[in-house]
Amino acid sequence: MRVVRTVEQLREALEYMRSGGHSPIGFVPTMGYLHEGHASLLRRAGELSNTVVMSIFVNPLQFGPNEDFASYPRDEQRDLELAEREGADIVFIPTVEEMYPQAIRTTVSVASLTTQLCGASRPGHFDGVTTVVSKLLHMVQPDYAFFGLKDAQQVAVLRRMVSDLNMPVEIVACPIVREADGLALSSRNVYLSGEQREEALVLSRSLRAAREAILDGRARTASEVRQVLVSEISTSRLAEIDYAEVLTFPDLENLGDNETLASVPGEIIMALAVKFGRTRLIDNNVFIPKEAAALV
Amino acid sequence: MRVVRTVEQLREALEYMRSGGHSPIGFVPTMGYLHEGHASLLRRAGELSNTVVMSIFVNPLQFGPNEDFASYPRDEQRDLELAEREGADIVFIPTVEEMYPQAIRTTVSVASLTTQLCGASRPGHFDGVTTVVSKLLHMVQPDYAFFGLKDAQQVAVLRRMVSDLNMPVEIVACPIVREADGLALSSRNVYLSGEQREEALVLSRSLRAAREAILDGRARTASEVRQVLVSEISTSRLAEIDYAEVLTFPDLENLGDNETLASVPGEIIMALAVKFGRTRLIDNNVFIPKEAAALV
Repeated sequence: MRVVRTVEQLREALEYMRSGGHSPIGFVPTMGYLHEGHASLLRRAGELSNTVVMSIFVNPLQFGPNEDFASYPRDEQRDLELAEREGADIVFIPTVEEMYPQAIRTTVSVASLTTQLCGASRPGHFDGVTTVVSKLLHMVQPDYAFFGLKDAQQVAVLRRMVSDLNMPVEIVACPIVREADGLALSSRNVYLSGEQREEALVLSRSLRAAREAILDGRARTASEVRQVLVSEISTSRLAEIDYAEVLTFPDLENLGDNETLASVPGEIIMALAVKFGRTRLIDNNVFIPKEAAALV
Repeated sequence: MRVVRTVEQLREALEYMRSGGHSPIGFVPTMGYLHEGHASLLRRAGELSNTVVMSIFVNPLQFGPNEDFASYPRDEQRDLELAEREGADIVFIPTVEEMYPQAIRTTVSVASLTTQLCGASRPGHFDGVTTVVSKLLHMVQPDYAFFGLKDAQQVAVLRRMVSDLNMPVEIVACPIVREADGLALSSRNVYLSGEQREEALVLSRSLRAAREAILDGRARTASEVRQVLVSEISTSRLAEIDYAEVLTFPDLENLGDNETLASVPGEIIMALAVKFGRTRLIDNNVFIPKEAAALV
């Protein structure tokens, strides 16, 4: 495994792999503080690619002024051990100065998909994501890029960007990885106190309750599903709901309050953002209502 | 020479050239109705590349609602003859539907460089340019892309986009090509009546007058240069000035009215947009004030 810290070293390392015939290239962009979710992306990358590149970069552009850029957890040594163990060939760890040597004037933005959910709560966040992912894709020029479905909106936005701009890469979305008790893995889970960690289970529990209500026929419309989500989350004293939404996926369009889920032809997402103190957690479930059995 | 009309055919044709070792790839994006200026881009591309790709696409995204998208001149047969004669290997002629199969939600935009000059007169124009050029660069993945300096602001904007987004391509700027009498070549010159065509010479004439005034020491500041430009253009009864500006290049920053050009460390642009009836013409001169002799 080779660790590179400049764009030039990265391009050299990639050129070496490409000229040696080690294509296709798979790319796993991360903000570090890696967990089993990232490990699953690396393993999937290893299945589809002959060279696996991981980047570790906490991107200031996608953090709002009152967000946790400065305190975002970092542990390079542990990250490198995980990357090595999971088969990364090249790990790219640029500084902020290497990524943004001059004030960046260019923005890549995806309209409408970014006004909902996390886009509404975190203005500018997705412009920061699409811009930095564009940069990274241009640096690595991978055949595949791997993203976790925990950030389902991010997957939807990046797929749209890649398709709209004809970027020569395939976005591969990988399933959410959870703790044994259901909590979706996140680098931010480390912020939680013991009590918050326990109550954070309401996210996955409410999604499960909503799935069951849909299967039972107790929740047939978006509005009924939202009610189940909200009432389950409200059982936690510490939980403060940012959003609990039911939308089409990947277009993230609103469903009419009385529209039955079964009438929606494609996929649907139930998406949650819930705050525990200053820590904001997200979770979601993407499913095809017509194939309700696939939910279980 | 191969003519392709779909992105898929284009990628196949490029893959064939690449796998045959015919790299580097040079790319000349155009809106067609080709003239000697485009021919000079193709020739330069031929010098630097083993495969020359030209695109012909009148991009609706970069035209304002009251601009000449519908009437923009088109002549595919003549364009193909010129492309063949000047050594293009692949000509890509997509339809609007091929370029935009779904409503495009993604925009690439470059801030600040696009608020001046043509950006001020043509709101949204440069977003249309940067977005479509991003798409084309992702389709062709060229080593070099060639643009004429007549659209000097476009060159500045695209260079910034490529650098900010780490696009793996070099933007090659090529000199303005002029008629024997000085008029800069433009597909839009065909709109001019006989009388307008004659008076359109004030653009190049005023740039020449300004250069002479700078060399003579009669015009030392941006404001004095602007005066020369405006007074020369005003000798035409038909000319209506959109802008006549003196800015730094490629950052397109304003100079103080009393700042002497000689104190500017880098390049300077004198840029003009002048309307004759409904036809808007542009012209410019980029130079290094400290090396005034290079102006002649």
